[in-house]
Amino acid sequence: MELFEVLNPPQRLLMGPGPINAYPRVLQAISNQLIGQYDPVMTGYMKQTQRLYQQVFETNNEATLLIDGTARAGIEAVLVSIIKPGDKVLVPVMGRFGHLLCEIAHRTGAEIYTIDVEWGEVCDPALIEQEIKRIQPKLLATVQGDTSTTMNQPLAEIGEICKRHGVLFYCDATASVAGNELKIDEWQLDAVSVGLQKCLGGPSGSAPISLSDEFVKQINKRKHVEKGIRADHHEDGVEPMIQSNYFDLPMILDYWGEERLNHHTEATSMLYAARECARLYLEEGAVNVIARHKQAGDALATGLKAMGLQLFGNQAYKMNNVVGVYIPDNVDGEEIRRELLLRFGIEIGTSFGPLQGKIWRIGTMGYNARQEAVLHTLAALEAVLLRHKAAIQPGQAVIAAMEYYS
Amino acid sequence: MELFEVLNPPQRLLMGPGPINAYPRVLQAISNQLIGQYDPVMTGYMKQTQRLYQQVFETNNEATLLIDGTARAGIEAVLVSIIKPGDKVLVPVMGRFGHLLCEIAHRTGAEIYTIDVEWGEVCDPALIEQEIKRIQPKLLATVQGDTSTTMNQPLAEIGEICKRHGVLFYCDATASVAGNELKIDEWQLDAVSVGLQKCLGGPSGSAPISLSDEFVKQINKRKHVEKGIRADHHEDGVEPMIQSNYFDLPMILDYWGEERLNHHTEATSMLYAARECARLYLEEGAVNVIARHKQAGDALATGLKAMGLQLFGNQAYKMNNVVGVYIPDNVDGEEIRRELLLRFGIEIGTSFGPLQGKIWRIGTMGYNARQEAVLHTLAALEAVLLRHKAAIQPGQAVIAAMEYYS
Repeated sequence: MELFEVLNPPQRLLMGPGPINAYPRVLQAISNQLIGQYDPVMTGYMKQTQRLYQQVFETNNEATLLIDGTARAGIEAVLVSIIKPGDKVLVPVMGRFGHLLCEIAHRTGAEIYTIDVEWGEVCDPALIEQEIKRIQPKLLATVQGDTSTTMNQPLAEIGEICKRHGVLFYCDATASVAGNELKIDEWQLDAVSVGLQKCLGGPSGSAPISLSDEFVKQINKRKHVEKGIRADHHEDGVEPMIQSNYFDLPMILDYWGEERLNHHTEATSMLYAARECARLYLEEGAVNVIARHKQAGDALATGLKAMGLQLFGNQAYKMNNVVGVYIPDNVDGEEIRRELLLRFGIEIGTSFGPLQGKIWRIGTMGYNARQEAVLHTLAALEAVLLRHKAAIQPGQAVIAAMEYYS
Repeated sequence: MELFEVLNPPQRLLMGPGPINAYPRVLQAISNQLIGQYDPVMTGYMKQTQRLYQQVFETNNEATLLIDGTARAGIEAVLVSIIKPGDKVLVPVMGRFGHLLCEIAHRTGAEIYTIDVEWGEVCDPALIEQEIKRIQPKLLATVQGDTSTTMNQPLAEIGEICKRHGVLFYCDATASVAGNELKIDEWQLDAVSVGLQKCLGGPSGSAPISLSDEFVKQINKRKHVEKGIRADHHEDGVEPMIQSNYFDLPMILDYWGEERLNHHTEATSMLYAARECARLYLEEGAVNVIARHKQAGDALATGLKAMGLQLFGNQAYKMNNVVGVYIPDNVDGEEIRRELLLRFGIEIGTSFGPLQGKIWRIGTMGYNARQEAVLHTLAALEAVLLRHKAAIQPGQAVIAAMEYYS
């Protein structure tokens, strides 16, 4: 029999594109003992969590709740619940996570139309409007912050365009939420999904989502109740059944709603974590948390530039919480990352697809969006690069970042 | 702004059909700080977790891993990955969770054939063979322990029948695993999925699954790799794409395999919990843990009968870890449950569908499969029933259970 040892993970400073270190208070919350899923205390915590995420998302959407899975589960729940085979979906693709939206939507039978944007740029709202007019999609699906490119798509104008043309507007804000502005009601978003493992400072495994009343009205046409669960007869919706049970949002809304109709068994520990992530964010204040992310991100970028490194992508649209930086000539990017991890306990990110081997991605998120994390990372990166004889400017990076902070 | 209070759940004794109280060591494990998903320590933990669940499941299946979601997510991952539209699936339905298998399979486009078994009984393997011959399904999908009826389906003979007829054999063992025997290889199961929140003594939110080589061969025909993730070209599988991305097992196998191809971001905290659940089970020893569940379940049933209550279902096939008991005449079952919860801090279960309002379900699972939990529950239930003037035998239940234990 192989039992292995008691869990004892090393202390890492996670400065990649996520996951990152959880706030200590989140780890305290997640370790609380369980209670029953219909315990009035539990349903109370569920209601509180809904209210907390309404505030995080700056929305009055009643349909604000958690999907029990990673951020990707939240995306799939939204897309599979709204898209029927043959529905037209328009997706601006600015990086890997735009491709992911297409891929998930494709599997629901959607007709996909993309606006292909060069990696490192964002999509012009005027172009989105032009394509909406031409294609007349049911849904516009976009990513806000795409960590694969570090770009943050401006959303403020797009919601109004969608409303004007009767198009539903969904955004995956997993990587951007809590590090960059996100205003569901003001920006007229119909659906948003996120995860905890970026700027919210929690573990992966719970996906807060929020849906507008119009979105709920649309998906409820596909409502359906499981056999064997209810004594009385129930009238099913008029439109085709959603092709997933686990991600059937009308059923999940019933589970979170007053009726508390059984669906899955709520992942209580993850709910404890999600609740505490939101409390931390709101307690510090949205404006302050986002400012802290901007400060840490700018300090890091300042340090990297002072080292003589070149940043990736259009800096006017960079997310506050992650920066792409070109790997200098004649060094092996993966060897540098390995040394940072194993000698300094610091993790920075590699890249996907066309950027693989070309840039690193360095994050400053949640608990790690703080001065010491930025300074340690710059100092360690500089040392490792010098050891590998990279042509960088020594002795400048940390000081530049410290000065930025003063 | 509404922040609500620091999480402070009441101490409950969860004696329902699950979720139940987590083992304290699981709550310690889950509160560990996060590490990166490609950190060698993390991939090491993933490998260990695979090895631990191979031992829990008594299998050599290499494809043994966690799905990031509740037990229901594990079910859907298995079914959506194997079933293509038009595939025939045979499901013995003995309770609510049989209906759930049908419901999930139906959404993948399967042609569903059921064997309808009266709630409280199990399905005769000879009948299964007869129906397999008649229908020639691709897959037989069954529940092992269906908590809605408390029955435990014998599986030992069914695997051999399936093999003989070239039918794949899947079992949802969420409610039975670790409280009742489950031998994947000996019983020739092709796919099994479970959850942590029953006899494994962890929180809901992670679904260990195991797949035979033959099952993997079948699903790999539908393999597909996301765009934007890989630099090189990749040949896709020959069969239609799996209709879910999140539950695409060939992709998830690549994430857990040597290639570590990115899919979702592993829910690290839940993996910590799952790993510790398995360690606890194996450390105590499968035979001992199952015996402990049988002992607690029998002691509880003995006590209930001594009180003069009638048990539900064919007791020859009762799961070790949960018992159904008829609500006595002239008492309000929900009022009794409420009083047990709010005055004694003890939770017992209500019922679904045809059994709603007729029986309670009382569990003795994982950490709570122990003498004191059984005795406190019987004592409290007796007191509340007497207070509500139920016609029961006073003063017998606890003593009978104590004597059973001596």
